[in-house]
Amino acid sequence: MTAGPTTRRLIGLDPGLRRTGWGIVDMAGQHLRFVASGVVETDDTRDMAARLVELLSGLNGVLDQWTPDEAAVEETFVNKNPASTLKLGQARGVVMLAPALRGLPVAEYAPNLIKKTVVGAGHADKAQIQMMVRRLLPGSAETQADAADALAVAICHAHHAQTRRLLAPALLAAAGR
Amino acid sequence: MTAGPTTRRLIGLDPGLRRTGWGIVDMAGQHLRFVASGVVETDDTRDMAARLVELLSGLNGVLDQWTPDEAAVEETFVNKNPASTLKLGQARGVVMLAPALRGLPVAEYAPNLIKKTVVGAGHADKAQIQMMVRRLLPGSAETQADAADALAVAICHAHHAQTRRLLAPALLAAAGR
Repeated sequence: MTAGPTTRRLIGLDPGLRRTGWGIVDMAGQHLRFVASGVVETDDTRDMAARLVELLSGLNGVLDQWTPDEAAVEETFVNKNPASTLKLGQARGVVMLAPALRGLPVAEYAPNLIKKTVVGAGHADKAQIQMMVRRLLPGSAETQADAADALAVAICHAHHAQTRRLLAPALLAAAGR
Repeated sequence: MTAGPTTRRLIGLDPGLRRTGWGIVDMAGQHLRFVASGVVETDDTRDMAARLVELLSGLNGVLDQWTPDEAAVEETFVNKNPASTLKLGQARGVVMLAPALRGLPVAEYAPNLIKKTVVGAGHADKAQIQMMVRRLLPGSAETQADAADALAVAICHAHHAQTRRLLAPALLAAAGR
């Protein structure tokens, strides 16, 4: 398992206070390779501050083990219940903080863009996303639902990072530089 | 400035992504003493992850300097705008995490309880809170508005911590222990 100099390792994150999905993908040119995925869970009988510490500690374990170069986080779905949105926000703050504290760039993607990138439609359901993630990342078949969502975030980031790299020379040329 | 063995140092925190107020109070028996207060600001031209790192770093500086024993955080006002609630939640996650990572207990108080404890009415306005904070904590007169709110959280925590301590023996006796 050697990685060439142009391989970038990405971590996708799907934040939640109870369960935060994570997925690691290696990107080499146009190719994506599944590396690992999982879920960090927190104990919902503990108080909020203790759960946030538990979440950070779990994420630090994942980052220590897999040492990604870049991170991408799903923009949390803003539902109708403000108390749930606040809780999700608290978890999301910690999820963004963990990679940022290591100096990793942290990109954010809206759920609809992730769905559109992975499935081709902004209103795809969970089953369609999981099916496409398995197709795009052979080896991820046993992945749990939250981890599959995190892999979808990583795929989305890889796609847009790739597009930015391809477009950059053209954009610079167009700008006359 | 010596602290007896029964002195507990409290930090009150009023979370916000742009400005997080903090206030340090020493509690010795029934007596409260103003120690310090201020605001941690983040640069709103930077991306979210960088601002969360900036917030944690600022709070760590305050905790290093003033070494409180306990923390209390205002339960963020859940307003009508879900996007603002999510942002506030992200800041609040980091604000709760900072003291919890040092093993400090982190209490949470609803805004109405804070107002009721400090002013005597659940619907007090900012000016009334600031006036009462100045009266209860001589020396805090020059405090900024966000820092005064944080001191109000600390006062609320001191009051309820005191009540819990006074009630504990009576409750244990009532339980027949």
